[in-house]
Amino acid sequence: MALIVQKYGGTSVGSIERIQNVAHRVAKFKKAGHDVVVVVSAMSGETNRLVALAESLQEIPDPRELDVVLSTGEQVTIGLLAMALQSIGVPAKSYTGWQVKVKTDQAHTKARIESIDDAAMRQDLKEGKVVIVAGFQGIDGNGDITTLGRGGSDTSAVALAAALKADECQIYTDVDGVYTTDPRVVPEAHRLDKITFEEMLELASLGSKVLQIRSVEFAGKYRVRLRVLSSLEEGGEGTLITFEEDGNMERAIISGIAFDKNQARINIRGVPDKPGIAYQILGSIADANIEVDMIVQNVGAEGTTDFSFTVPRNDYRRALKILEDVQSNIGAGEVNGDDTVVKVSIVGMGMRSHVGVASTMFRTLAEEGINIQMISTSEIKVSVIIEEKYTELATRVLHKAFGLDKPKV
Amino acid sequence: MALIVQKYGGTSVGSIERIQNVAHRVAKFKKAGHDVVVVVSAMSGETNRLVALAESLQEIPDPRELDVVLSTGEQVTIGLLAMALQSIGVPAKSYTGWQVKVKTDQAHTKARIESIDDAAMRQDLKEGKVVIVAGFQGIDGNGDITTLGRGGSDTSAVALAAALKADECQIYTDVDGVYTTDPRVVPEAHRLDKITFEEMLELASLGSKVLQIRSVEFAGKYRVRLRVLSSLEEGGEGTLITFEEDGNMERAIISGIAFDKNQARINIRGVPDKPGIAYQILGSIADANIEVDMIVQNVGAEGTTDFSFTVPRNDYRRALKILEDVQSNIGAGEVNGDDTVVKVSIVGMGMRSHVGVASTMFRTLAEEGINIQMISTSEIKVSVIIEEKYTELATRVLHKAFGLDKPKV
Repeated sequence: MALIVQKYGGTSVGSIERIQNVAHRVAKFKKAGHDVVVVVSAMSGETNRLVALAESLQEIPDPRELDVVLSTGEQVTIGLLAMALQSIGVPAKSYTGWQVKVKTDQAHTKARIESIDDAAMRQDLKEGKVVIVAGFQGIDGNGDITTLGRGGSDTSAVALAAALKADECQIYTDVDGVYTTDPRVVPEAHRLDKITFEEMLELASLGSKVLQIRSVEFAGKYRVRLRVLSSLEEGGEGTLITFEEDGNMERAIISGIAFDKNQARINIRGVPDKPGIAYQILGSIADANIEVDMIVQNVGAEGTTDFSFTVPRNDYRRALKILEDVQSNIGAGEVNGDDTVVKVSIVGMGMRSHVGVASTMFRTLAEEGINIQMISTSEIKVSVIIEEKYTELATRVLHKAFGLDKPKV
Repeated sequence: MALIVQKYGGTSVGSIERIQNVAHRVAKFKKAGHDVVVVVSAMSGETNRLVALAESLQEIPDPRELDVVLSTGEQVTIGLLAMALQSIGVPAKSYTGWQVKVKTDQAHTKARIESIDDAAMRQDLKEGKVVIVAGFQGIDGNGDITTLGRGGSDTSAVALAAALKADECQIYTDVDGVYTTDPRVVPEAHRLDKITFEEMLELASLGSKVLQIRSVEFAGKYRVRLRVLSSLEEGGEGTLITFEEDGNMERAIISGIAFDKNQARINIRGVPDKPGIAYQILGSIADANIEVDMIVQNVGAEGTTDFSFTVPRNDYRRALKILEDVQSNIGAGEVNGDDTVVKVSIVGMGMRSHVGVASTMFRTLAEEGINIQMISTSEIKVSVIIEEKYTELATRVLHKAFGLDKPKV
């Protein structure tokens, strides 16, 4: 008997029939003797619908009020799933974020979880109930509703698993595990049985869309055993995220190719090259709670410097506006940008012991005539910013170049 | 400068454009120097959509979980209205039922308000903000979400007005006041400038659909000055609900004709005529939290009694099932019913000083060949149950018979 936290995303609960399927899967685990806590997202399409309503009233919706509106999506799903479980004879009880006291900071629309009160859930589990918790949402110190940002339900699930010291946290999604890259782009992509925490962290942050990065960080911090599985197929093993590199495993140099279209590039030219300038530029962006991803600084003309960085696309306009406001303060020449770019990355623990990985990447892209706009590297990844239209081509040629294509049977 | 509570129903907030209209109206009151607290319903159609989702999972949805789902409707509206106000420069802040601590009992889907904490709202008003509160919802002693039942937003508004000692509670709806009857049925119907609390209570309970009965009771209990207005037209005076009969007013004998199609009749025949039998029958219905409206008991054959009562249509099946379960306990012969009936009522303070009002009603219906199935009377109303198909005909002929038709200009 184990305590399992299961998370089902928007597609898995996207219709009444699918909610019933989730109920049957949960019931199976329950009948096998396990305690089950289920975390759910909003029904697919619902969050977009609510965002559209908000944006038709305010170009940039008030963050506190946006969270009030967005958090209703998951609240509907928890109630419906509880009904679906009860209708097949499984006792179940739902909790919103504030009811289970998912305390967060006050960063509306991208809040971070600080603590969870597990008392009520433990009591329900003891009484044989399935506990259903709304993902993506919490409550701050003022009693205001907060949300964790897109994909935040994964983080909710891992945080609950950590708080409950669950034996495993299972993330059910519309793929059956973590792939070497997106199989819709590269049909030769194959599923990884295991992936290291570090690799997963890079893949998640780079937009593999399988798991939200913060959930992987959380899992690493609290040593939560995390597994990605398909909610559509039965009996799959999915991909287990391991904490230690398996010495016996024959490892490929590169584990996967990720791409992230949620990127917009911003350039500031002709900034006086003096200490503190990076802080002046990025500080104003950080104060607005906009995440900055890649950062590149180059020497410009006559004692000036050129500065580039990327932000999520939905923060692009806001970031541009902030920089226009501080432009004169920092004495910058020109602020512009491009939100039709993509970040393509190669990730792998094997990279550490092999030279020439980056140069293979650059050569492969050059052979296809793809221009590289920005480059950033870490110990186990290399990322480049290229024109969005080359996303699929770049991913395909890199997948092949690093020997990730499925072996022909 | 006054403190005004305004309530806008589902139709008034049924689209982005209508929410913007509400924002402009609120802003006008704010600019005139008033403090404004706004109570809103779910966008029209939303509650029905959510009920349909729930009912596709459970024939009778679990009440606790149904409230979790239903309460999201108003939560979306409060956030959107706050954004709409902010976008035209009016500071505004939204509150769910639990955030403003609308404490209720535990009767899910038809809870009653016990108390409201006005501290946070008063602080916001002092800071010049418009306060927006989700109608229809509250929180019980267990921290569970409750809802007040259909039309409960009116009750929320009046309860808030009472808690805040507001100068006036304005209920905005899609009609411009209280009419002598439904103008869609009788074009000659006209708006009443004033109506007494008692008459309004009878009209509300009889399905005039303008105000929910509990909100009128609440207003009476806490002496809340209540006004019904149109949210579609500007500058109307609406109908004021007064607490004392105006001695100087030339009063018609009858103020209005109401009909209520949300009625189902249940008959129990051949019940042993002994003390406690009414309690045995109605107690089981009350325990299931089903509201009973009209009750009639007649002498039946050989020491037995026939018993009839009406319940809301959506409780009809459930009420029948409960009675079938207790049928053998009470030794009843037959349980049956009809959910295609309507209750038509005449209401008026003037009735008290005039004889023959009931007989005029019965004669008028008889002349049209309309059979009366049940009769119930009070000091200021007479109600009859008739076949639903006669609703419009009965209302029209009674409206004319009691001299309510608009004077020809």
